[in-house]
Amino acid sequence: MTAAIIDGAAVARASRARTAGRAAAFRARHGVAPGLATVLVGDDPASEVYVRNKRRAATEAGIADFHRHLDARSAPDDLAGVIADLGADHRVSGILLQLPVPQHLDGPALVDLIPPDKDVDGLTTLSQGLLARGLPGLRPCTPSGVIELLDSADVGLAGAHVVVVGRSELVGKPMAQLLLGRDATVTIAHSRTRNLEAVTREADILVVAAGRPALITARHVKPGAAVIDVGIHRTSHGLAGDVAFDEVSAVAGYLTPVPGGVGPMTIAALLSNTVSAAEIRAAATESTDRRSPHHVL
Amino acid sequence: MTAAIIDGAAVARASRARTAGRAAAFRARHGVAPGLATVLVGDDPASEVYVRNKRRAATEAGIADFHRHLDARSAPDDLAGVIADLGADHRVSGILLQLPVPQHLDGPALVDLIPPDKDVDGLTTLSQGLLARGLPGLRPCTPSGVIELLDSADVGLAGAHVVVVGRSELVGKPMAQLLLGRDATVTIAHSRTRNLEAVTREADILVVAAGRPALITARHVKPGAAVIDVGIHRTSHGLAGDVAFDEVSAVAGYLTPVPGGVGPMTIAALLSNTVSAAEIRAAATESTDRRSPHHVL
Repeated sequence: MTAAIIDGAAVARASRARTAGRAAAFRARHGVAPGLATVLVGDDPASEVYVRNKRRAATEAGIADFHRHLDARSAPDDLAGVIADLGADHRVSGILLQLPVPQHLDGPALVDLIPPDKDVDGLTTLSQGLLARGLPGLRPCTPSGVIELLDSADVGLAGAHVVVVGRSELVGKPMAQLLLGRDATVTIAHSRTRNLEAVTREADILVVAAGRPALITARHVKPGAAVIDVGIHRTSHGLAGDVAFDEVSAVAGYLTPVPGGVGPMTIAALLSNTVSAAEIRAAATESTDRRSPHHVL
Repeated sequence: MTAAIIDGAAVARASRARTAGRAAAFRARHGVAPGLATVLVGDDPASEVYVRNKRRAATEAGIADFHRHLDARSAPDDLAGVIADLGADHRVSGILLQLPVPQHLDGPALVDLIPPDKDVDGLTTLSQGLLARGLPGLRPCTPSGVIELLDSADVGLAGAHVVVVGRSELVGKPMAQLLLGRDATVTIAHSRTRNLEAVTREADILVVAAGRPALITARHVKPGAAVIDVGIHRTSHGLAGDVAFDEVSAVAGYLTPVPGGVGPMTIAALLSNTVSAAEIRAAATESTDRRSPHHVL
């Protein structure tokens, strides 16, 4: 079998076009575009590239760009002040704090300063709780993008056995929650899993977010399985993922490439979340008297 | 093989004795006992029994009893008012809203009115988010009790493959999070799982919270596995769980009975959470200037 390659760039392009349409409709209705605030602390080159790409994509989708760049030696209170300002700014629909932040800052605590209704990365404690409870909320971008990729290839989720390799707060754990919400049977494997190969070979769908180059080889994959590679590594042969692409493509039924697979979907999901946040806030403002304790979203 | 029966009543007794010791130490130091507020709406007989048992166990452990019983036709605002009063009452360390509430009330929204630092059931959105992020917080009682049972029998969790059957907000999903935190490989199966038998037979440890009597039979269980039965059903032969006890006891390595297994542990975990909540609040009051955005717990 030779795997069908899922073209993340094409799926992301279509998703961004839909988001641009929603952003235009929002501006037509409310007279102001949805806005995305990106907050970058320090000058890590990779983070600078990521933030630049997100800002460019937002602008292309008709989302207003609000960027703040703070010095690497900024105090926690400086950053808290910036986030508070953006939280109070009604032009800002979503706030993204680029991670990682410099070591002297407490990333998870700073993320929690983002108001939940502007949490377009879906990483605050409240957003993760809403996801765990199956309540409405903004969902983390990379896992959302993976779901969209699987849907684009018509890979059925309900009843399928999905193995997620990796248990990070950004990908593995929210990925499992989203898949459960789609009625998949979900296994979470990780660095402490015994006999990883036996576990992953049970998967109808294998989502790999382990952060280890070429961890998943042909013998980890059940013939015909759909394999989604969330990893990205700079190697001597260029960018590569957590999956040994060439050999796995001979076994899997579907496979995402690196680059051009999950990566573009993460940005697409961020843009979609930003417009969703704008829409939800506008709807909430229009019906404040129907607010419940779950009015946050 | 004949399974070793894990005696939940005995483990719970030991846990409650430890909690009573902590409650006494708390009272000696702070001059006031930890307090548990139970809130019951309506007169469902089963709920009345559960609440009575919790109050009695709390009193026996030296925890002060604050009980509120509301009429079945209470308005949401009545209940919100009671929870707000208890939230402001410094004698109340923990608040438990007995579920389910009558149909005209929104249970999940009402649970979220409980201040996170008094959420001794661990069911608020913020508590579930803290659990998902691996941050300190109060954990749901039944899953905590299951972990304590496994620890009591020295069943190793790190690297073990645990299959959780059931994906409820109260048990299955937080159970998976706690197990991941203990380095288990975790599979969540549920009513939509295809070939449940094949999935559960992979388990070194099988936690069953499906709410279906005798769902798990001998052929669902790998010889020697540890089987934890969270179900409880009233049958013509008395109380029974989700596991067909007699036949599974011939296959499993460890097995919890119903009654006398997980049930007593849930109350023990509630009492432990109540004293923990009191201790954490006292510590936070003593060091208010060290507060971070995660000061809630």
